[in-house]
Amino acid sequence: MEKTRLELDRIQAARRVIDPVFLGSPFYGCEPLGARLGCAVSIKLETANPVRSFKGRGTELVADGLVRDGQRAVVCASAGNLGQALAWSARGRGLDVTVVASRFAPEVKLERIRALGARLELVDGDHELARERAVAIAAEEGIRLLEDSLDLETCEGAATIGLELVESAVPYDVVLVALGGGAMATGIGQVMKELAPEVEVVCVQPAGAPAMTKSWEERRVVTTDSAVTIADGVAGRFPIAEVLDDLLVVADDAVLVQEESIVKGLRMLLHDAGLVVEPSAALGIAAILEDPERFAGRHVVTVVCGGNVDMDTYYRWIA
Amino acid sequence: MEKTRLELDRIQAARRVIDPVFLGSPFYGCEPLGARLGCAVSIKLETANPVRSFKGRGTELVADGLVRDGQRAVVCASAGNLGQALAWSARGRGLDVTVVASRFAPEVKLERIRALGARLELVDGDHELARERAVAIAAEEGIRLLEDSLDLETCEGAATIGLELVESAVPYDVVLVALGGGAMATGIGQVMKELAPEVEVVCVQPAGAPAMTKSWEERRVVTTDSAVTIADGVAGRFPIAEVLDDLLVVADDAVLVQEESIVKGLRMLLHDAGLVVEPSAALGIAAILEDPERFAGRHVVTVVCGGNVDMDTYYRWIA
Repeated sequence: MEKTRLELDRIQAARRVIDPVFLGSPFYGCEPLGARLGCAVSIKLETANPVRSFKGRGTELVADGLVRDGQRAVVCASAGNLGQALAWSARGRGLDVTVVASRFAPEVKLERIRALGARLELVDGDHELARERAVAIAAEEGIRLLEDSLDLETCEGAATIGLELVESAVPYDVVLVALGGGAMATGIGQVMKELAPEVEVVCVQPAGAPAMTKSWEERRVVTTDSAVTIADGVAGRFPIAEVLDDLLVVADDAVLVQEESIVKGLRMLLHDAGLVVEPSAALGIAAILEDPERFAGRHVVTVVCGGNVDMDTYYRWIA
Repeated sequence: MEKTRLELDRIQAARRVIDPVFLGSPFYGCEPLGARLGCAVSIKLETANPVRSFKGRGTELVADGLVRDGQRAVVCASAGNLGQALAWSARGRGLDVTVVASRFAPEVKLERIRALGARLELVDGDHELARERAVAIAAEEGIRLLEDSLDLETCEGAATIGLELVESAVPYDVVLVALGGGAMATGIGQVMKELAPEVEVVCVQPAGAPAMTKSWEERRVVTTDSAVTIADGVAGRFPIAEVLDDLLVVADDAVLVQEESIVKGLRMLLHDAGLVVEPSAALGIAAILEDPERFAGRHVVTVVCGGNVDMDTYYRWIA
């Protein structure tokens, strides 16, 4: 296998640093969901922790590193979940956190970032504008800039999900991973390709925010002018070249799904699995819905990566 | 501590028998819920597994024992979750399962029992009639009768939740446990009283189905003529003397809550924790709601014991 930026021994070491509350997340078969979709479906559930997403795995590594380096402050751009997780990880360690987010991010995510004691700065634009502003703050204040997917801790943290998947005694054929910046896809993909190369790693992105998938297809960074999707957690426009390079090594496929499939996925996860999730976490189910023949009769794992939704909006989706 | 039917070494041994999919369930702080309730709230989540309740912990022990004894069949009465879990545990081991349930049980529970390959017999009455019928079937067919809470495996399985709670590095003051037949309350209570006696164990039962709580108060079996509650999983009328004896040793308190508090608890678990749960799983939150001063400023653990709800009914509750 071609080399990437990720190394298995670092991923294994990460588990000794991450607070156990984020590790060993549930991994179980959901037969009602499988019966409806025509394949066996297992869920890797990343919402049953204090920040209701997988991002705590990575921010634990970031915060631990900052403390060991004697640093006191960190800034990141976030669609909402990274900022929440970073605020959680930093709070217990006495670190100052600034999170820059779009003012269009779900209110529940913004509220939780504030409640966890981070300074929250909103930009009047999308996630890419928040990224620019975070770069500027880091330069002005001379503090660490945390860049999701580019900074290895975010990928290594997510990769620990992969370790848990390969350690399971249950065999499976495919892992469906939501694709945004690429930290989760490259992290999980790396572990699968090294330790369970027979498992197909399929990344799923909304057709309305396809930059990384298009980049993967064309094997070069492709940016888009807009990102229009309810899956706010993966709505980026400017893929990072280093992350794309890794993704090209570890992902077997990258597919795009329609908004209506994401909404159907949300409904199925509620009705057949009893799970309230955010749209990014329904991308895997959406992929099965759009290409049932591809998955028919196979055992498919979907990583349910986050559950932070504004309930009013959620009720409209599931109505 | 006075002796009960439960022994710590058997509970510890149980973990080597139970399928790991039921063990190591999430245990995490939920700050939004705590903020609303005026205390720190941690959730022990027993819904993220193939049967969406804690009952699999016990049925794994039952099914394993049947196989070791060379038995081929088992019958139980169930409000729905035990039957589902028994069917799951038996299926992989080639055991025949008969479940007797009330025809008023939630349809989703009955459907899942059937889907898992068990024979389902419905009685035109409540859970106590189902228990009578299960006794008759066991006698007629000469097969093992599984009696929830009376049979030690059901208590020992639930008790493994207690082991996971005491092994956590997080300190807490109170554990709230739903009280029905008593398997979960005596199981968890036993472990807490032996290994963390400073933690208060509070059982919570609906005021509409108060038999075991009244029995605990009067220190003798008290039956009731009816059990009227939305918390179908704990709606018994005839407490078992042996279980009551154990409960008197390991429970610090048993409280009753109103139906409207259970519904409020369901709503809070959805809105503040993103969890779809069945009413029995909201009893702990209901107890905090009814006596906030008792819990103010303390760290309270609530065991979210099941998530099997008919969605149409659930929508009416949370509307």
